Amino acid sequence: MRLKTVLPVLDWGRRYNRQTLTSDLVAAVIVTIMLIPQSLAYALLAGLPPEMGLYASILPLIAYALFGTSTTLAVGPVAVVSLMTAAAVGRVAAEGTADYASAAIVLAMLSGLFLLAMGALRLGFIANFLSHPVIAGFITASGIIIATSQLGGLLGITVGGHAMPELLASLLAHIREINWPTLAIGGLSLALLLWIRLDLGNWLKRLSVPDGAARLIVRAGPVLVIAVTMGLSVWLDLGRNGVALVGDVPQGLPMLSLPGITLELILALALPAAILSLVGFVESVSVAQTLAARRRERIEPDQELIGLGTANIAASLGGGYPVTGGFARSVVNFDAGAATPAAGAFTAIGIALATLLLTPFLAILPKATLAATIVVAVLSLIDFTILKRAWIYSKADFLAVAATLAGTLVLGVETGIALGVGLSIIVFLYRSSRPHAAIVGRVPGTEHFRNIKRHAVETVSGVLSIRVDESLYFANARYLEDLVTGEALRTEGLTDVILMCSAVNAIDMSALESLEAINERLRDMNVRLHLSEVKGPVMDRLATASFLSTLTGSVHLSQHQAISQITASRQGPTGTQKS
Amino acid sequence: MRLKTVLPVLDWGRRYNRQTLTSDLVAAVIVTIMLIPQSLAYALLAGLPPEMGLYASILPLIAYALFGTSTTLAVGPVAVVSLMTAAAVGRVAAEGTADYASAAIVLAMLSGLFLLAMGALRLGFIANFLSHPVIAGFITASGIIIATSQLGGLLGITVGGHAMPELLASLLAHIREINWPTLAIGGLSLALLLWIRLDLGNWLKRLSVPDGAARLIVRAGPVLVIAVTMGLSVWLDLGRNGVALVGDVPQGLPMLSLPGITLELILALALPAAILSLVGFVESVSVAQTLAARRRERIEPDQELIGLGTANIAASLGGGYPVTGGFARSVVNFDAGAATPAAGAFTAIGIALATLLLTPFLAILPKATLAATIVVAVLSLIDFTILKRAWIYSKADFLAVAATLAGTLVLGVETGIALGVGLSIIVFLYRSSRPHAAIVGRVPGTEHFRNIKRHAVETVSGVLSIRVDESLYFANARYLEDLVTGEALRTEGLTDVILMCSAVNAIDMSALESLEAINERLRDMNVRLHLSEVKGPVMDRLATASFLSTLTGSVHLSQHQAISQITASRQGPTGTQKS
Repeated sequence: MRLKTVLPVLDWGRRYNRQTLTSDLVAAVIVTIMLIPQSLAYALLAGLPPEMGLYASILPLIAYALFGTSTTLAVGPVAVVSLMTAAAVGRVAAEGTADYASAAIVLAMLSGLFLLAMGALRLGFIANFLSHPVIAGFITASGIIIATSQLGGLLGITVGGHAMPELLASLLAHIREINWPTLAIGGLSLALLLWIRLDLGNWLKRLSVPDGAARLIVRAGPVLVIAVTMGLSVWLDLGRNGVALVGDVPQGLPMLSLPGITLELILALALPAAILSLVGFVESVSVAQTLAARRRERIEPDQELIGLGTANIAASLGGGYPVTGGFARSVVNFDAGAATPAAGAFTAIGIALATLLLTPFLAILPKATLAATIVVAVLSLIDFTILKRAWIYSKADFLAVAATLAGTLVLGVETGIALGVGLSIIVFLYRSSRPHAAIVGRVPGTEHFRNIKRHAVETVSGVLSIRVDESLYFANARYLEDLVTGEALRTEGLTDVILMCSAVNAIDMSALESLEAINERLRDMNVRLHLSEVKGPVMDRLATASFLSTLTGSVHLSQHQAISQITASRQGPTGTQKS
Repeated sequence: MRLKTVLPVLDWGRRYNRQTLTSDLVAAVIVTIMLIPQSLAYALLAGLPPEMGLYASILPLIAYALFGTSTTLAVGPVAVVSLMTAAAVGRVAAEGTADYASAAIVLAMLSGLFLLAMGALRLGFIANFLSHPVIAGFITASGIIIATSQLGGLLGITVGGHAMPELLASLLAHIREINWPTLAIGGLSLALLLWIRLDLGNWLKRLSVPDGAARLIVRAGPVLVIAVTMGLSVWLDLGRNGVALVGDVPQGLPMLSLPGITLELILALALPAAILSLVGFVESVSVAQTLAARRRERIEPDQELIGLGTANIAASLGGGYPVTGGFARSVVNFDAGAATPAAGAFTAIGIALATLLLTPFLAILPKATLAATIVVAVLSLIDFTILKRAWIYSKADFLAVAATLAGTLVLGVETGIALGVGLSIIVFLYRSSRPHAAIVGRVPGTEHFRNIKRHAVETVSGVLSIRVDESLYFANARYLEDLVTGEALRTEGLTDVILMCSAVNAIDMSALESLEAINERLRDMNVRLHLSEVKGPVMDRLATASFLSTLTGSVHLSQHQAISQITASRQGPTGTQKS
């Protein structure tokens, strides 16, 4: 393994020049403007003080720039991971306490170490078990939970819980305590943000604003809304009218410090950290790969684990909370022309400057504005069309989406995703335990064999050709025995059974014993058992066992040769061919 | 569903005649003689009073005769299930108490209901997940644990625990308390039983005893040893010398009664009951199928669940404990010529008579004799050759055997088997997440395509044919993306990629999205994506999605046609063929 594999900056750093610098700086400015309100808002969503969102947008970006493989992935706090952080940390400390914040910092450290360990041990494949339907159901459910949880901030009431039953109960219990000025400022923010997002672009176009400038204005929209509501906050003295404001935020950059890890915290947070890391990793890699493909670049998933792992450790050391690659901001980074991971490092500098210079002004910002920012951001996560698409394509996939969606909404993020993953695996195992099998015959005029039920094919009397469409292993070994002996008992005048193994990718020891049993039972019936189209790796494995020497028939390279040879051997004693 | 499927007795009962009656009666006498000492001994092994072993050998046999599908399976208490009973019941009550015995009766009821439910819901496939290596490792470990636990009975000391660490610790703690008369009578029993088993047959042969009579004498051996030690017990007044005797056994048959089921007991025993039932079922079906195949009979696994389920409910109602089909006694039943399940019912009558008539004499039987009976019976369970065979055939299977063996020995029966099953599933999933794939070419002179690394094959320049040897699903979808785009990037002058799908038995929604991603990426590279040899069920599924309409190439019936058509289309604008 070369050093530049582990430290990709050594590779792209050598080719760095004035042109890439310019591209990266432009992208960094745009992403910084987008990231400031998001950082504050997502910290709020995680139940943390707003400055922790900013801290999580500085060091992690630099760490990812050094170790990540994507040129455009923009790392930082994201909505779903913030919700998962709140759910995990909420179990060990009360929101708003110092213990709560330090538990979030520990969570980032555990998450980073977990990702790093997975990367070092090349265990990235574990993330594959978060199937697309599970992730899709989970993200939609998370979006609904997040949007609901922010209703409290928009209405000026206290809402608790990280799943729908508690959230709704808490909303209903406090609904009479609405603070009308908060609702007004929250509603205004929401309306402005939606208008900026849905309509401002067209409006600017009609005013003949150049495309580039228009895009920048749209992206800076949330910052403008923040500025407007801050102005209103001062002008109308909203704080005195019961509107919750962000309040004093410590000025200056955080000191580097080791989090206060205790064994108790590790035990309580290890599993949530693992789940949160996997979800963050899958989302991040999927964004990175989509963007990389457009530029014909490659993402190394195992190296991404290292990149995100160091980013989370950096978040923890710098007083932040768990981070991952964000979808919207990575697309913006890509569109803005970010050429190398250095764009991320420049964004980090931008956020650091903002932390130093802007924090005094944040005290007067209404929290309702941040809640509105979150609601608008997560609306794009909610996508029910996946339910319909899955229903049409496959009921098993639908089951996985629906179970994850309902499980996450009702039982919470960790239980929901565990339910989805467990169900996907059970469905997969169940299906492979009852494999599809077909009796096959030759497509006339070819050497190709297909299912006799689906194609007009030729068969030879006395010869039964069965194609089993699954690897043979313990879960379907006994099924295979029943199938082959059952078909053999049903077929009149049978002399030969050919098991066509083109779809058999492995034969484990249980299946080997079943094949031996089948061979013996057919021998008792004076029927020979043949194998055809056995794959190289499977044949290598069979060669180590005694099965091939007791096989009553032969192993044939192709199904066509098997049929030819059996037919030839019937025609006379000298008719046997060599394959 | 016809009634005779559910009640097989309606089928074989109609054909019952004098000849089958004679065969069944002879077999029943032999099995009864064999079953008496085993019933007493296995009850002792389960920590229960000896009469419960006899009770478990009466009603369950009649229930199985009515509902079971095997003509030769002999149901009753068996060693492994007795050990599992002791492990399960030992957690809710102290051995020797009335609560302990009634918990065992409840366990039989739960086990019966579980099997019945599995049968009614056709869930027999669940048992397939107990793979052959897992069962083999488990049985060997159980044999070792059982033999060790009986050392206490042979030495006259108290030994507790159901896994090796506690057993060995308990043995070492009490080793100085050896009762020498017990050891003498235990050693004598052991020696006699081993001699009967290993040498008596040859000895009788040399004495020209007819084969049939010799076999009967060998099988009656354990009863003779019991008679001999009972004689010694009276003669030497062993009870006064500290030798543990069976003691007073209630005479007469048990009353039918409902077990005292409480919610607490259900919660404590449900999982052990399920595991014990599955192990018993797998062992039982495997014996039944082996014997049935020799007579060209069929076993219906789902109906076997009903048969064993009612047998366990009958055991519970009749004051017994969990039962299943026993290997040794079923083979004896088969060899003795049992023609129908009625042989089991006659055996039940034999045991009932023994319970009525022989119990007064059992008081003087030394427990050490029963311990010796168990040790000799379980020696045949211990088989370490499976470790070697698995090692040679497949390291994954070896891992499953070794983990189950070690896990059961060290952590106990339930944890051990759960470990083995879990590990088997994880290994299977891991392997299928990194499928074997081959670049293929045509075997010259045929229409058959094989791996270019293993066979001398022909390829067409600019066309890359990849055969993926696994169903495409969430666990390997991303791997597939990496593989195909990676190979495509490496190949010079590429115009067409053909995915040969002969081994692809399913494509789930995650894999579909990966195929769409591959198609798009290849399109960006001006490369067409084709599929060949897509199976019927997979094609049906794909037809419901939009993927086929966006596919840049075509779907070809066979790999040969795919190559022919691509070559033809290159030769001229009119060269496209119809497949």
